[in-house]
Amino acid sequence: MKNKALVTGAFGFIGRNISRFLWKMGYEVIGLGHGRWSFEEWKAWGLAEWHNCNISLDTLCSYAESPDLIIHCAGSGSVNFSISHPMQDYLRTVDTTLNVLEYMRLYAPESKLVYPSSAAVYGNAKSLPIPESAELQPISPYGVHKVIAEQICKSYAEHFNIHVAIVRLFSVYGRGLRKQLLWDACNKISTGELNFFGTGNEIRDWLHINDVVTLLSCAGEHASPACPIVNGATGSGITVSDILDEVLKGFGISQKAQFSSIPRPGDPLGYIGEIILANNWGWKPIIPWKEGVQDYIRWYKEEIL
Amino acid sequence: MKNKALVTGAFGFIGRNISRFLWKMGYEVIGLGHGRWSFEEWKAWGLAEWHNCNISLDTLCSYAESPDLIIHCAGSGSVNFSISHPMQDYLRTVDTTLNVLEYMRLYAPESKLVYPSSAAVYGNAKSLPIPESAELQPISPYGVHKVIAEQICKSYAEHFNIHVAIVRLFSVYGRGLRKQLLWDACNKISTGELNFFGTGNEIRDWLHINDVVTLLSCAGEHASPACPIVNGATGSGITVSDILDEVLKGFGISQKAQFSSIPRPGDPLGYIGEIILANNWGWKPIIPWKEGVQDYIRWYKEEIL
Repeated sequence: MKNKALVTGAFGFIGRNISRFLWKMGYEVIGLGHGRWSFEEWKAWGLAEWHNCNISLDTLCSYAESPDLIIHCAGSGSVNFSISHPMQDYLRTVDTTLNVLEYMRLYAPESKLVYPSSAAVYGNAKSLPIPESAELQPISPYGVHKVIAEQICKSYAEHFNIHVAIVRLFSVYGRGLRKQLLWDACNKISTGELNFFGTGNEIRDWLHINDVVTLLSCAGEHASPACPIVNGATGSGITVSDILDEVLKGFGISQKAQFSSIPRPGDPLGYIGEIILANNWGWKPIIPWKEGVQDYIRWYKEEIL
Repeated sequence: MKNKALVTGAFGFIGRNISRFLWKMGYEVIGLGHGRWSFEEWKAWGLAEWHNCNISLDTLCSYAESPDLIIHCAGSGSVNFSISHPMQDYLRTVDTTLNVLEYMRLYAPESKLVYPSSAAVYGNAKSLPIPESAELQPISPYGVHKVIAEQICKSYAEHFNIHVAIVRLFSVYGRGLRKQLLWDACNKISTGELNFFGTGNEIRDWLHINDVVTLLSCAGEHASPACPIVNGATGSGITVSDILDEVLKGFGISQKAQFSSIPRPGDPLGYIGEIILANNWGWKPIIPWKEGVQDYIRWYKEEIL
């Protein structure tokens, strides 16, 4: 019999990629969440079933079938949304996590849960790279809600023996991602617009989606009541202006990007993740960032332009 | 026009006492929550209105009338319940708090909120007395949920300019409280039963309900987007065995209590609160503990025996 995996938020960028990865590893993958896609589409992403629904105790009882592995990708993914709609952001991120944990406690105590958290839990880091033991000082409601979802995971792991691992993802990117810096950059640069928000000196640790899915899968093997927490990053920081130079190069443009010099609210200036703990699991990121960016641009040119 | 106050969880021990206190201070007090009591009863506790309902955005919009002051007493009050029903405990404590904050953000941005939190957020303290700056390491789901409710308060205060003050209450007691140590002790001792759980050496900081209500009221005056947090305690610790000696004395029994020597799960051994911050607000506890205990026993003899 095939191992079963449940992916919540399977329509999202990380959700669909981890679904396909697990399918290729031989899992039967059940997807839950919101999103409009055709039977052909979700089949192509490796889902055996797709249920368009909230992540509630009811839907989990109906569809989850005591899976061996749960990757809980459902939740809010936007700092701006958390500022404009704090309660909805909270419910999407925290209440879905609570429902998954309560489902496990009551009906699937043998399942292993991987929770993709975010570097946003750290807020403005005092020094780089950031170890997992750094103080959590989120600067946006989004970051606060991610901290709270982590706390609920830890509490269930500790008090109810639930197997959990948490991966704090830094800046995830890859072909198909239709938001955030690379998407905005391609949209602007492909139309000759070279003005960007921020200073260009913001540092991010860019982790390619192919490296994300190997880490999430690896985390599943380490899920335990001790609830290990690891950073999902490369350990190296790239400035926004370096990323944009690479995008400009991909579009064959020799001009430079211009910056507004106005920082965006809720956006920390520097993020680099220390990855000693994930390395200790035997995981390593393998996609060089310039290669990842050029691959993104190839996808953009093929699919969007 | 009278100032208006909203008390959630007004049926509970702290809720009804703060309702009466605010009423005597001249507030028109609206009570929301669950509980079975008669019109005469809730009137006697100072409520102008009582609505038996969940604390939701809907009920707050229907009944709260943009109050000057909100005392959010609704929530779970039991470590044991949080272990047997972690999700319900979470929803009672955290989701009600989220709903109050979202109501304030959208419909009552001028209101001031006082959130009675708990010393359970500290877990096993490393040293006594515990300052508010101590690390939060709750050892029960109840304590975790109180930490999370505090975080949501702080996040709304910081990001949406909501006026909040948090009071971390230590061991609250007083006439009318039908649970916890004094209640159990009176029930046992009045029937000649002298065996108790624990070691007798557990230390608690007992704060009389009359002192609780003056502190909550004082906190309302200091609620701000800075979200101050103060301990609600006396600064002195009393052992369980000292409390029981006092109860035995009140019942005229010369024998000593016997202890099982088995600690209860989720129950920290020592709690004494540092109260410098609340003192700086001009607040002081005034009921000596022996007097408070004897008053409790008088109530117990009048109403229960």
